[in-house]
Amino acid sequence: MIRFVAVDIDGTLTFRNRRLDIAGVGALRKAENSGLPVVLATGNVLAFAETAATLLGTSGPLIAEDGGIVFDPASEREYMLGDRVEANRGLAALELEFGPLQQTRSSSARLTGLTLKRKIEARVAEELFRRKGLDLVAVDSGFAIHIRSSNVNKGNALRKVASLLKASLAEVAAVGDGPNDIEMLKIARLSFAVANSDEAVKRVCAHVTKEPHGKGVAEAIDKILSLRD
Amino acid sequence: MIRFVAVDIDGTLTFRNRRLDIAGVGALRKAENSGLPVVLATGNVLAFAETAATLLGTSGPLIAEDGGIVFDPASEREYMLGDRVEANRGLAALELEFGPLQQTRSSSARLTGLTLKRKIEARVAEELFRRKGLDLVAVDSGFAIHIRSSNVNKGNALRKVASLLKASLAEVAAVGDGPNDIEMLKIARLSFAVANSDEAVKRVCAHVTKEPHGKGVAEAIDKILSLRD
Repeated sequence: MIRFVAVDIDGTLTFRNRRLDIAGVGALRKAENSGLPVVLATGNVLAFAETAATLLGTSGPLIAEDGGIVFDPASEREYMLGDRVEANRGLAALELEFGPLQQTRSSSARLTGLTLKRKIEARVAEELFRRKGLDLVAVDSGFAIHIRSSNVNKGNALRKVASLLKASLAEVAAVGDGPNDIEMLKIARLSFAVANSDEAVKRVCAHVTKEPHGKGVAEAIDKILSLRD
Repeated sequence: MIRFVAVDIDGTLTFRNRRLDIAGVGALRKAENSGLPVVLATGNVLAFAETAATLLGTSGPLIAEDGGIVFDPASEREYMLGDRVEANRGLAALELEFGPLQQTRSSSARLTGLTLKRKIEARVAEELFRRKGLDLVAVDSGFAIHIRSSNVNKGNALRKVASLLKASLAEVAAVGDGPNDIEMLKIARLSFAVANSDEAVKRVCAHVTKEPHGKGVAEAIDKILSLRD
């Protein structure tokens, strides 16, 4: 039986412009009220995830910084699943090659990676990292270019969350839309891509919802709850 | 004519349990779409205000830490309207008198005051500050006891926001519910207390809405927009 559901925020619970799609909020509350805790999973910093959890009313652990940080509200403990040492090296290498690059406003607050304004292609950055022997990935979230160590991802964070909740991955569902959700969606027992997802995301998911964004999340939650009955 | 509206978050846009009242979200978007920028004003830290603004889609400057910080998204500048030096002295005095006191999770991130778990009465803390000659206020927000210098309040922050937007206070509306909203409500041209407000808040407001929380915010926004026509 599914014990919790991990839900991406940007593009999944929000529209492209980052505003909350109200249609998904009721679904999250329905899940919580049905004893299915919601784990918010974001590429953003922990403070963003904590605020979203407070306003939305979700109770599960939080995944922030694309999986670099897991926060357990039960113990108020933060688990760091990476650092930004290699990412800083990567930025230095990029700037040597392409000149000064601007980080996003939240980047200085990041503990396990960094985010650049979208002036450089993720593909180009990854090519340079490969040439320089840096163990980094560069992912374009649509909002920023996320640079992080290759072992930092929402999949590894989801394993940590499952262990905190004493659940197996066979008891986990996940909903997402973007490239930084793929590792999480691949290892969850039940995986949902909302209708607005990238093709690469839809390919790794068992289910693709009919509707985009919040309405898609509502479809996914209904499906998960129906399978529990 | 009203140029912008400042809206408190906790208890005004949210229910008592801190969850967003969806009924208010549409109203904020209606204001924004009608050319009435929304200024979110919170006792919480700036990261909380920034996340709320992103998810809700408000465009105005942000008031955080009960007025200790104003953030201008146009310039990405933060203005510090206080510090926590006196508040730290106040905490030391309280602990000498009452033994160790626990700060809330966000307190260490606060730059212009601090917040204690509600194990001590605000009235008792203020009495001690007076005796020790400390220029501090203690306000019970219902979520925490906020300790800050007496010049740090949402009223002074609202003056700063008005000056950033080149507006006069005669062009400002404000909506709130709690004791930390009083200074802001007192100086705004149009002031609204939502129906769930403390009596002391209702007394300083020109208008009290019929409905509580988000529905009350919607009433206030409709009234402000009708007066602009």
